[in-house]
Amino acid sequence: MSLNYTNSIPLHNQLREAIKKKIFDGKYTKKIPSERELMDEYYVSRSTVRQSINQLVNEGILEKRPGKGTFVVLRPVNDWLGNLSSTNEIIERMGMIPDTKLLKAEIIVLDDFTKEITGLSKAYHFKRLKYANNIPLGIERHYYPIELGRNLSKYDLNTEAFYDLLERELGGKTFEAEQIIKSVKISKEDAALLNIPNNSHVLNANRVITDINGKFVEFENAYYRSDMYSFKIKLSRKQ
Amino acid sequence: MSLNYTNSIPLHNQLREAIKKKIFDGKYTKKIPSERELMDEYYVSRSTVRQSINQLVNEGILEKRPGKGTFVVLRPVNDWLGNLSSTNEIIERMGMIPDTKLLKAEIIVLDDFTKEITGLSKAYHFKRLKYANNIPLGIERHYYPIELGRNLSKYDLNTEAFYDLLERELGGKTFEAEQIIKSVKISKEDAALLNIPNNSHVLNANRVITDINGKFVEFENAYYRSDMYSFKIKLSRKQ
Repeated sequence: MSLNYTNSIPLHNQLREAIKKKIFDGKYTKKIPSERELMDEYYVSRSTVRQSINQLVNEGILEKRPGKGTFVVLRPVNDWLGNLSSTNEIIERMGMIPDTKLLKAEIIVLDDFTKEITGLSKAYHFKRLKYANNIPLGIERHYYPIELGRNLSKYDLNTEAFYDLLERELGGKTFEAEQIIKSVKISKEDAALLNIPNNSHVLNANRVITDINGKFVEFENAYYRSDMYSFKIKLSRKQ
Repeated sequence: MSLNYTNSIPLHNQLREAIKKKIFDGKYTKKIPSERELMDEYYVSRSTVRQSINQLVNEGILEKRPGKGTFVVLRPVNDWLGNLSSTNEIIERMGMIPDTKLLKAEIIVLDDFTKEITGLSKAYHFKRLKYANNIPLGIERHYYPIELGRNLSKYDLNTEAFYDLLERELGGKTFEAEQIIKSVKISKEDAALLNIPNNSHVLNANRVITDINGKFVEFENAYYRSDMYSFKIKLSRKQ
């Protein structure tokens, strides 16, 4: 991919996006090329290369290791669809360290949208920020029937995965889920939490979990930054 | 969902998005409420309601039927993941009429990204615009080994689905595919084709099909307008 030297987007922004894309596409996985190599590859000045890299360091995607070079810290996350995995499991599978910050745990009156999905008028709502290698990657909102939510709220939700807790609380029943994936505009508040520009588009995954008898267990409404998150699936066509 | 009467986004644009969301969420499926009902529900003037509806009529999402009311024409499309379906099959399953326009059929030299995915340096490239009820819904680019592409190019690609042709050409072998779903910014050229604003974000599905021996058959790079397209999947967690 070469840059566009005549359009109005500053070269350092173009180069930043080009590097980000190489990371997302899995072409840069550990150490990225040197300043000299990037200057030669993209026909740009050293100061342009430095600006791009500094931006990516500030975004937490790259890290400079003195005397060693510049390294990819936030690797792209592929969420393999097909079985229910916790975000922690997904991030660990990508070789990164997951972390969670509980932002809200409260009983709320539901809006029409959430009411219709859950069949509830009030629910226990948890809002959590998920990190990969200390970079905010997504926001997950969970809604539970009040009784179940109250039980879950007693655990340390900065470390525990809801799946494990659900299995403990509900006695290891088999769960089923239906998930919808969309591309949506993020709210101002959530953009600030994810450290991405206002009006960014993000991947939105809505997921309803029911128990084996079809009874509502959990509604999750999650937003993941689209520059570093994708869903992956294997499909087959049999005759 | 109520409108924000104090911010700088014109009310008719907010109402348009609110109506669109109700369609996408499956709340308006056939006839939408009357002008009077929308005025009362959203506390807006008749002219605001009319502006919103006219915009949605221009976008092809609503249709006015004199003496009968205003109806939803473009229903939201849920692409159920899990088995390989053609876009025509998906659109028909949503109760709409699919249509296709072949925009390009050519042998091209591949860029680095496509080269790496396909393992080819040149490929037969087809670009098609997909319609649901005459509204442009997505852009699909297919890449094939030249020999196979040449054979496919002999069919009427404005009506035939590539899947059916592949099965015919390759003698009904079983296919396997891997698909990646992202949210990406669309190109200016493709935004114009889809009749959506520049810089819109869209759902991007990359899909590589291999035959049962793992040999490359097809790479598809598709873009679907995010206001009316989503992916859906059933998941389960067994102990």
